[in-house]
Amino acid sequence: MNSFIYDIPTKVYFGENQLGHLGEELGRYGKKVLLTYGGGSIKKSGLYDKVVAEIKKAGLELFELSGIEPNPKVSSVRAGAELCKKEGIEVLLAVGGGSVIDCTKFIGAATFYDGDAWDILEEKAEITRCLPILDVLTLAATGSEMDSVGVISNSETKDKICQGSPLMQPKVSFLDPTVTYTVSPYQTACGAADMLSHVIEVYFNMNKDLYMLDTVMEGLMKTIIKYAPVAMAQPDNYEARANLMWVSSWAINGFVEGGKRQSWSCHPMEHELSAIYDITHGLGLAILTPKWLEYCLNETTASKYYQFGCSVFGLDASLEPMEVAKKSIALVEEFLFRTLGLKSRLSEIEIDDSNFEVMAAKAVRLGNLGNAFVPLDKNDVINIFKMCL
Amino acid sequence: MNSFIYDIPTKVYFGENQLGHLGEELGRYGKKVLLTYGGGSIKKSGLYDKVVAEIKKAGLELFELSGIEPNPKVSSVRAGAELCKKEGIEVLLAVGGGSVIDCTKFIGAATFYDGDAWDILEEKAEITRCLPILDVLTLAATGSEMDSVGVISNSETKDKICQGSPLMQPKVSFLDPTVTYTVSPYQTACGAADMLSHVIEVYFNMNKDLYMLDTVMEGLMKTIIKYAPVAMAQPDNYEARANLMWVSSWAINGFVEGGKRQSWSCHPMEHELSAIYDITHGLGLAILTPKWLEYCLNETTASKYYQFGCSVFGLDASLEPMEVAKKSIALVEEFLFRTLGLKSRLSEIEIDDSNFEVMAAKAVRLGNLGNAFVPLDKNDVINIFKMCL
Repeated sequence: MNSFIYDIPTKVYFGENQLGHLGEELGRYGKKVLLTYGGGSIKKSGLYDKVVAEIKKAGLELFELSGIEPNPKVSSVRAGAELCKKEGIEVLLAVGGGSVIDCTKFIGAATFYDGDAWDILEEKAEITRCLPILDVLTLAATGSEMDSVGVISNSETKDKICQGSPLMQPKVSFLDPTVTYTVSPYQTACGAADMLSHVIEVYFNMNKDLYMLDTVMEGLMKTIIKYAPVAMAQPDNYEARANLMWVSSWAINGFVEGGKRQSWSCHPMEHELSAIYDITHGLGLAILTPKWLEYCLNETTASKYYQFGCSVFGLDASLEPMEVAKKSIALVEEFLFRTLGLKSRLSEIEIDDSNFEVMAAKAVRLGNLGNAFVPLDKNDVINIFKMCL
Repeated sequence: MNSFIYDIPTKVYFGENQLGHLGEELGRYGKKVLLTYGGGSIKKSGLYDKVVAEIKKAGLELFELSGIEPNPKVSSVRAGAELCKKEGIEVLLAVGGGSVIDCTKFIGAATFYDGDAWDILEEKAEITRCLPILDVLTLAATGSEMDSVGVISNSETKDKICQGSPLMQPKVSFLDPTVTYTVSPYQTACGAADMLSHVIEVYFNMNKDLYMLDTVMEGLMKTIIKYAPVAMAQPDNYEARANLMWVSSWAINGFVEGGKRQSWSCHPMEHELSAIYDITHGLGLAILTPKWLEYCLNETTASKYYQFGCSVFGLDASLEPMEVAKKSIALVEEFLFRTLGLKSRLSEIEIDDSNFEVMAAKAVRLGNLGNAFVPLDKNDVINIFKMCL
C-alpha cells in the first residue's frame, strides 16, 4: 500500500441561494475580477445577471471573457492571460462547466508566464504561480470545480493535453443544483458518463489500496446509476441534481485515489477522439469504457470486476468471478446505452478508422498507458478503437 | 434538503515514513513549537525521539507539555495556554490520540484569551484566534485530527463539554498506520466503537439529505466492521490499521454531514458517563448505542434501520423493514460485544443508577437532545440509561 498526501482545500458552498457569499469570497482575493464564461447560456438562464449583481454589490471591478468553447482551446487561454496582464486582474471567476473552469485554470497560470500558454500544457514551462480561481458550476460532470487539473485543446496541432498544478485548485466553488435544471437530458447523460468514467478509471486497479476508498467509489457509482435517469426524466428534480453534482466533485478530486499510482486508460484514448473530432468528452468515454473493460478482463483482473458487479449492481456473489465480470460489463453497457440513451459506436458519430494509428500512438505516449490497469501499447489501443467502431 | 458549506482544509500525510515532512510543515507556521503529548507511551514506542529529531533538524525551538490525560482536563488546557503566553509559542504539535489533540486545540484558543480557559467551553468567551495546530496521530478513534471540535472535562464541576471553531481545525495531520501497531486490542476496540458511533449519529437521521453521503457512510461502517477484528487479532496488520485510521478521520470531519442539522444522541449521553466515571469514551458509546437504537425504533424510523441493515450487513431486502431493523440492532450488538469483546452493561463497569437524574438532565441540555434523530427528553435518557444497566 502506497503512502499519499491528501490536500483538497477547496471550500464549497453547496445548495440553493448561496450566491450571497460570492462577493465576500471574491473580495478575499482581490478587487479586479475577470468573469469567464462560455457561449452565453448563463445569460439566458439569468445566472449571469445574478453573478454580476453580486460582484457589483461587493464593490469589485468587473472584467469579462466570454466564448470559452466546449473542449476549450489554447487560443482562449491566450486571450484570457493577455487580458489579465493588461488589466492587472487579481482574481478569476469561472461561471460554467468543466470547459470554462479548465480554461480559467490555465488563464490563471499563463498570466504569470511570458511565453506562449501552450508551453505550459507541453511541460516546456512550469506553473510557478496562478491567479486565485473561484467558480460557479453549471454542469455536473468533469469535477474541475474541486481538482487541480484541466484539459486544453490546440486546434492547430490537434493536440488535447491534460495538465495540472495544486496552484490551480479552485479556492471556492459554488455548487447550486438548481443551476443545472436547464441542462438537457443529453448533456446530463454525457456528464453522468464522464463521472462514472472518473470513478472506473481509479476503481479498476490491481494495486493494493484502502478498501475504505473502494466502498466510497462503489457508493459514488451507485449514486450516478440511481440518479442520472431521474435527472434526465425530471430536469428539476433537486434530489437527483444535488446527488449528481456532489458526486461529480468527489469522483475526481483526488480523495478516492489514495495511494494508487496508475495511469488512467479511457481518458487518454478519449482525448484523442475529441482532439480530432471535437465530440463531447462524456460521449466518447461512454463508447470506450465498456469495450475497454471487455479488453482488460482476464483471469487476473476478474476479481476486481467481481467486486464491482457484486457491490455496485448487487450481482449474486456466489457466481463465478468471470461470470459476474461479464454480467457487470453488460450492465454498464445497458446503463450507458439504454438507460442514458447514448450512442454506442464510433461509426454512429461518423468516426472511422482513418486516424486510429496516430491517435493510438499519442494516447499511449501522452497517457503513459504502459502504466495503466492493464498496460496498453499502441496495438492494444487500436484494437479497442476497432471494437468501438 | 438543506444547503451546507464544505470546508475541510486539513492537509494529511498518510502512510509510513512521512515524518520527513514534519519540519518543513511546522516551519511554515512558526519557529517556536510546543510539543504536546500524553502519558509517555510515545517515548516507549520511539515516536517521541523521531518527532524531536525532525523538529531539531528543521532548526525550530522546542517546548514541551506532557501528561495530557485521557478525557483531557481543563487544567491541562490552562497549563498549556500559560506556557504558550509565557514563551511566545507560535505553533502547536500534538502527538497522540484524540485527547491530546482536543486539549491542544483549546490550548491554541485559550492562548488568545485572558480569562479562564473554561469560559471558552462554557461559551462565555468566543474563540477569536487560535495558534496553528499540527498533529501526529497515534490512535484511530476520535477524528480530532481532521475536525474543528474537541471535548474537555472539568474535574471540579464534573462537566464534560464539546466545543468547536474552524480556527481550531488542524493545519496538517500525519497519519501513519504503523504508529498504531502498539495500540492494544482493547483500545483498538474502543476506537472502532467510537468511529462507528460517529457514523451512526449522522446516518440515523430522518431529514432528507444526499443519498450519496449515505452510501459513503455505509462504506465507512462496512470498513470498521471488516477491519477492527483484524487489527485486534493482528496488531501489525497494515491494511487493517490503515483502513481504520482513514475511516476515523472521515467519520467525523464533516463531509458525511452534508446539510443534516440534527443533534447527536449517544455522544451527549456518553459525555455524562465519562464526566462522572472517567470511563473510556468508546466503551461508553458501545454500551449506549444498541439500547439507544432499540429505544428509537418505531414505525416511522424503521425505514432508516432497514436501509442500514440491507446496506451494511447485507440483510435480505425482501424482509419486512421492522424485521430487518431488529436484526440489524442484534448485529450491532454482536459486533460490539462479541466481535470486539467490549462490556455490554453499565453494571459491569460499576456504574449504577445513582446519578441518572443529574446526567440525563445535563445530557438533554448540553446535547440539545430535543433536536435529535428521535427527540429525547430527560425521562427518555433515564430510560435508555436504565436499559444499559
